[in-house]
Amino acid sequence: MQSLIEKADVLVEALPYMRRFVGKTIIIKYGGHAMTDDSLRASFAVDVVLLKFIGLKPVIVHGGGPQIAATLDRLGMESTFVEGLRVTDDETMDVVEMVLGGKVNREVVDSIQRAGGRSVGLTGSDGALLQVCRKQVNGKDIGRVGEIVEIDPRVLDSVSESGFIPVIAPIGVDRDGLTYNVNADEAAGGLASALESEKLMLLTDVEGVLDSEGTLISQIKAGEVEKYFLDGTITGGMIPKVRCCVDALEHGVSRAHIVDGRVLHAVLLEIFTDDAGVGTLLTP
Amino acid sequence: MQSLIEKADVLVEALPYMRRFVGKTIIIKYGGHAMTDDSLRASFAVDVVLLKFIGLKPVIVHGGGPQIAATLDRLGMESTFVEGLRVTDDETMDVVEMVLGGKVNREVVDSIQRAGGRSVGLTGSDGALLQVCRKQVNGKDIGRVGEIVEIDPRVLDSVSESGFIPVIAPIGVDRDGLTYNVNADEAAGGLASALESEKLMLLTDVEGVLDSEGTLISQIKAGEVEKYFLDGTITGGMIPKVRCCVDALEHGVSRAHIVDGRVLHAVLLEIFTDDAGVGTLLTP
Amino acid sequence: MQSLIEKADVLVEALPYMRRFVGKTIIIKYGGHAMTDDSLRASFAVDVVLLKFIGLKPVIVHGGGPQIAATLDRLGMESTFVEGLRVTDDETMDVVEMVLGGKVNREVVDSIQRAGGRSVGLTGSDGALLQVCRKQVNGKDIGRVGEIVEIDPRVLDSVSESGFIPVIAPIGVDRDGLTYNVNADEAAGGLASALESEKLMLLTDVEGVLDSEGTLISQIKAGEVEKYFLDGTITGGMIPKVRCCVDALEHGVSRAHIVDGRVLHAVLLEIFTDDAGVGTLLTP
Amino acid sequence: MQSLIEKADVLVEALPYMRRFVGKTIIIKYGGHAMTDDSLRASFAVDVVLLKFIGLKPVIVHGGGPQIAATLDRLGMESTFVEGLRVTDDETMDVVEMVLGGKVNREVVDSIQRAGGRSVGLTGSDGALLQVCRKQVNGKDIGRVGEIVEIDPRVLDSVSESGFIPVIAPIGVDRDGLTYNVNADEAAGGLASALESEKLMLLTDVEGVLDSEGTLISQIKAGEVEKYFLDGTITGGMIPKVRCCVDALEHGVSRAHIVDGRVLHAVLLEIFTDDAGVGTLLTP
Amino acid sequence: MQSLIEKADVLVEALPYMRRFVGKTIIIKYGGHAMTDDSLRASFAVDVVLLKFIGLKPVIVHGGGPQIAATLDRLGMESTFVEGLRVTDDETMDVVEMVLGGKVNREVVDSIQRAGGRSVGLTGSDGALLQVCRKQVNGKDIGRVGEIVEIDPRVLDSVSESGFIPVIAPIGVDRDGLTYNVNADEAAGGLASALESEKLMLLTDVEGVLDSEGTLISQIKAGEVEKYFLDGTITGGMIPKVRCCVDALEHGVSRAHIVDGRVLHAVLLEIFTDDAGVGTLLTP
Amino acid sequence: MQSLIEKADVLVEALPYMRRFVGKTIIIKYGGHAMTDDSLRASFAVDVVLLKFIGLKPVIVHGGGPQIAATLDRLGMESTFVEGLRVTDDETMDVVEMVLGGKVNREVVDSIQRAGGRSVGLTGSDGALLQVCRKQVNGKDIGRVGEIVEIDPRVLDSVSESGFIPVIAPIGVDRDGLTYNVNADEAAGGLASALESEKLMLLTDVEGVLDSEGTLISQIKAGEVEKYFLDGTITGGMIPKVRCCVDALEHGVSRAHIVDGRVLHAVLLEIFTDDAGVGTLLTP
Repeated sequence: MQSLIEKADVLVEALPYMRRFVGKTIIIKYGGHAMTDDSLRASFAVDVVLLKFIGLKPVIVHGGGPQIAATLDRLGMESTFVEGLRVTDDETMDVVEMVLGGKVNREVVDSIQRAGGRSVGLTGSDGALLQVCRKQVNGKDIGRVGEIVEIDPRVLDSVSESGFIPVIAPIGVDRDGLTYNVNADEAAGGLASALESEKLMLLTDVEGVLDSEGTLISQIKAGEVEKYFLDGTITGGMIPKVRCCVDALEHGVSRAHIVDGRVLHAVLLEIFTDDAGVGTLLTP
Repeated sequence: MQSLIEKADVLVEALPYMRRFVGKTIIIKYGGHAMTDDSLRASFAVDVVLLKFIGLKPVIVHGGGPQIAATLDRLGMESTFVEGLRVTDDETMDVVEMVLGGKVNREVVDSIQRAGGRSVGLTGSDGALLQVCRKQVNGKDIGRVGEIVEIDPRVLDSVSESGFIPVIAPIGVDRDGLTYNVNADEAAGGLASALESEKLMLLTDVEGVLDSEGTLISQIKAGEVEKYFLDGTITGGMIPKVRCCVDALEHGVSRAHIVDGRVLHAVLLEIFTDDAGVGTLLTP
Repeated sequence: MQSLIEKADVLVEALPYMRRFVGKTIIIKYGGHAMTDDSLRASFAVDVVLLKFIGLKPVIVHGGGPQIAATLDRLGMESTFVEGLRVTDDETMDVVEMVLGGKVNREVVDSIQRAGGRSVGLTGSDGALLQVCRKQVNGKDIGRVGEIVEIDPRVLDSVSESGFIPVIAPIGVDRDGLTYNVNADEAAGGLASALESEKLMLLTDVEGVLDSEGTLISQIKAGEVEKYFLDGTITGGMIPKVRCCVDALEHGVSRAHIVDGRVLHAVLLEIFTDDAGVGTLLTP
Repeated sequence: MQSLIEKADVLVEALPYMRRFVGKTIIIKYGGHAMTDDSLRASFAVDVVLLKFIGLKPVIVHGGGPQIAATLDRLGMESTFVEGLRVTDDETMDVVEMVLGGKVNREVVDSIQRAGGRSVGLTGSDGALLQVCRKQVNGKDIGRVGEIVEIDPRVLDSVSESGFIPVIAPIGVDRDGLTYNVNADEAAGGLASALESEKLMLLTDVEGVLDSEGTLISQIKAGEVEKYFLDGTITGGMIPKVRCCVDALEHGVSRAHIVDGRVLHAVLLEIFTDDAGVGTLLTP
Repeated sequence: MQSLIEKADVLVEALPYMRRFVGKTIIIKYGGHAMTDDSLRASFAVDVVLLKFIGLKPVIVHGGGPQIAATLDRLGMESTFVEGLRVTDDETMDVVEMVLGGKVNREVVDSIQRAGGRSVGLTGSDGALLQVCRKQVNGKDIGRVGEIVEIDPRVLDSVSESGFIPVIAPIGVDRDGLTYNVNADEAAGGLASALESEKLMLLTDVEGVLDSEGTLISQIKAGEVEKYFLDGTITGGMIPKVRCCVDALEHGVSRAHIVDGRVLHAVLLEIFTDDAGVGTLLTP
Repeated sequence: MQSLIEKADVLVEALPYMRRFVGKTIIIKYGGHAMTDDSLRASFAVDVVLLKFIGLKPVIVHGGGPQIAATLDRLGMESTFVEGLRVTDDETMDVVEMVLGGKVNREVVDSIQRAGGRSVGLTGSDGALLQVCRKQVNGKDIGRVGEIVEIDPRVLDSVSESGFIPVIAPIGVDRDGLTYNVNADEAAGGLASALESEKLMLLTDVEGVLDSEGTLISQIKAGEVEKYFLDGTITGGMIPKVRCCVDALEHGVSRAHIVDGRVLHAVLLEIFTDDAGVGTLLTP
């Protein structure tokens, strides 16, 4: 009986958090181990279904770099890179769309539905959700890589208000109806801004933002970020993620989180805990 | 971190129960220690607020016998009893209304609001919710004691759909607008039937229905009840409570529970557990 | 036949008044003889039901000083007074709540329902309708006497839009969920301001505002009030009533009336007559 | 003051009638003196506006025989009659439409609007409200005289629900879009049946149904009617009116009234009085 | 088959125009040959029904000068004229109302309904749609001729949103409920302004605005109009029509058209063609 | 001008068809040349956008056999066949999902959006739209090939009512969340039945149902079908298509069409023509 009462206490403790976030939109960039490890994937799915049930509006944006690479490999297609970005010719883009829209997206939808939710998979070309232009890198064209210029959220509103959890493949569409590969963090950040969402959550395969000695920085104010870049505290692949968060904060998102997706129930913990122990919190 | 993940597991385990009961009406008869002990009262209030938040529709019916007796005492008013029922003359009824409607009801409302809910206190005369006739006991008039003849649930629908938790004092009104004292268990049972509610829950100061040797009977089918009465398994004050449950089951209520109100979070445990350990479950 | 036609004429004459007030909220402070005399109480109830039927939104706030005093007396409880205000210790407050919320409020609800209306009794703690802080009188604490600091009208909207006539006992609640006695005129005035009501009507046991020679002043502009106070035209218990009206006028109420509640159908007459003969009209 | 209180009593007495009829549709055939006498016309208009205001749904169908005759006369057009019905050739029908739709209908609309209501004039061809076929009288064609075969009430619903009082000229339309003259009593009766209205009221220039000695029959059951026709109690022009009422009663109308339109406020009196003194009441 | 495919191409070509105008209000002044010639009348009716079906909101305002003149003639009534305007005494106004409201208006409604639409005929006194004052011409009273002072569009909204095509006879009503003749072009222009309509279309019996040599001017900017008046390019009866258009443009109407009503499907062509070949386009 | 008037005539002729089908759901199986030929694809897209605009509810189900075969080939994956059905192991199913959901589906969505429509691509696993069990062929398991057992149309309703044209890849999901390949004709037929659609239209690469001499059969009644199968009039791949149509007709679909997708605007022609010249019509 005592353990039952303790369980009830957990529910009761969660109430203030439920109340705070009810009706709020939460954008979650989903990827890495959380997407490939079976038990992490299941715990992610059930977390999202629980959030939806208690009245939040989770929106999932997934990546898929490794899966794309594997398929290109299998098809014997080689890629060149410019500044770390894959040059995406038309044939490569075909593979990107098939893998993101036809495989990864579907797997996320199916895992959420297996956890008891109702989900709809979308790409950014559905209802012209993610409208992009062609990205230039240092003046060089790198093919079908897109930069978000506008977002039409109506398709999200439609499925979200009908009780579905939208899962979005980061593919954009230009004015001529041509599709483009979009960075998933950027897509998540852009949606967070456009949907006036409460939270942006980026799941990663690290503990959070670490300083040069590998210690977790549990909270960063948007204003401190440039200093950390300059003094080398934040480096490498974390820089664009942090920029993406700061950009969302500047567009009205209340809180951005870089979360360790390797922890079971990482999403729930982030929502239902005050401590920033699960990762790094960025605030305006 | 591990303990946090276990907490998340508790939430995730609760999801199927939330899903099962969402939108369902739960009638709870509230009284005894659960109403007088400070920590039980607080845990009851927060349970009800949580149920409301996650989409159930709790409706509270409270008793108040001891509080009425204390006030009559203080006013030096004596009562006579017929078959264990207080003969309620007009002056006594005045005290009943003041104590139930002006004191006990208000305390329940205030405790729910302190737990973060929004609540409205009602009596059965508001909107002619509980319509009664004068009860006869073995052909004897016992004054202003009422028997429910009809229920007009519109006032409950109005406050319930606006997000309030209704708290009802068991006072009825007859066709001439005269008010009557109503047994709280009967009022709860009648409302459960009229509102096509999913559950009727009677909080008591015992473990549940006990057999003649004091062992808890954890589940009873409606059809077995008469046998238990005849063979002396169920006796005394538990008989009318069990009858009240059976009556509700016959009017379409799915499950009735006689629950030990002395356990912290008794209401939550009853909703979120499969085991009938918290008391006695009656099914059709 | 002729008398029938004259009756029809009365209805036709009432039409422009109905049209003017339809959809408007009217706050009525109810008390005194109008509440204790049987035929006045019945005529008040039917007036209010008629107003509701033809599309106005009457809201009743009642007092209960004499009833409280009688019960305290009966319980042998004595009170001390500061500046004419009863010092309200916790035990006294219990009695106040029982009498106002459990007796007087119920009687008003029942009389309205006997007249054919549907009514709901509320206190200012229901849905945190009347939020108060503890009143100081000349720096002295006088116990559980409250001063309104905020009003949350949602509970009123809910019951009012569902066709019920709300009847409010003047009890407020502070941030900790503790209840307080509130002056009924103040509660009526505060609600009139908060609900952007068209009219505030205070029923009294005098003809209206009388000058020093006992002649009725049938109309007063808000700007003239201070002059009347200074030159002794308005004195005594009428001063706070007039202040209460002026305060409501300053918060957007169109008209405030101090009406003689001893006249049959005083409320209807006030609504359906142009002449200010039934009492004193205060305008901005 | 006393006379004011008596006026208030009249309002209060009207309340049960208002309550009984609120939301109900009342079809009124309007014609005769009530339409041509200035003060009767004004009293009719204000009655209808009052009914609309307090929540009934009055629908007016007017006649116009004398006005048509006068205009035909003025144009030097002669008519032949078959069984008392004017043979209506195309040229005559042009005059009928102009007089009913362009003159009489407009006058009724304007008088209602002068009384403070909002009104819309319609003919039975608007929205194909009154769908007719060509009437044969004893096998003879009498031109553009129509018999109702179907009613499409959508145009009435549209204007009625937007707060307008519909005023209908008795003109029907056949499947080819050709218009026909329709008897106004028949149009009113047909609408009463089609709209499932509560009441059908035919205003006439007599006291009601009189027996052969000129005494008013204040109430008739539908089943007694044939007997009265056979024994000569009801004769002449009253026969089709009574038939029209009986037909409506058979189609679900609750009460039909043949009312003396020469009495001021005849419509209001009929609604707000129990006595059938204003005319003859026909019940199923 | 080829001709079928060409037909499909026509539909496809029409799509962008449908899309552009969907939900927009189009006011059409209807008169002249388009109203009297059988095949033009039928083509007008079907055009309007098609526009309504695909989601535009056509509103028809008709004239009727020749029909009024013919009826006055037949009744032997002579008219005097001031500045080209008929002096309209009360007797003449009776004829105007009968002809416009009872004959011309009905014919338009019936022709639209024969083409498969649902239509409602109104005059400007229905629901006080067109509120006028008495017009003075050079200080002279010319009787019941009205000048629009205000428009209450609620009756139009009501019928239009219920799927009906409103057809309006240009009759206005003053504050005393007296009706007046209104110029149909002015009524159409006034409605276009009041309803914030997209287009005002005046059907005429000429090709459009012609210059002094009889050549069509296919487009005019509002700012050029005065110059054309001064230099005699635009003269005679076209001046008030052009003024009427300019006035509408100044009140927010996007485009005004003076269209040759003698062309089959003139209305459709105007909507579904870019070329201004069907008449003269006036823009802000 | 004359050619413009002829174009207007085409629009006017289309009106009765628009009217007949407005609000009706039309399921279109899309595939073959219509999907691969550029101008046919563009004409299909614009047809569908036009239907949506004028108020029909088109739902597109596409195939993709050749595209799947090409990708399998490219990946060097060989397939075995049972009774003409590809044995679909897990690896093959991955390819099927990528090609159908990530490539073909996206191309259809993009072509519709380029034609000016708003579209959303779905697979049958979104919202558990197409629920299947594993198909057995003559008792042999052929892997991930599904047979429809239930349809949950909520996701379609959601996007369709928000103005989007749904495009569905024929992939189903079983109770365990595993996905399956579904025959596109079967998916279209199943949806037509479940959505109570007006029409089922199967686009093919032949003229329609041809008899053994190659002559088009323009109309077939459901009852005649078995005879045609037996006598060899209908053979080969046309048999399952015809069965699929008959099955839909038996479930309440009004008309099924096997249409020649190689004709420009085949869909529009089918909707806007009475002649069955564009293919074969099957009726109940």
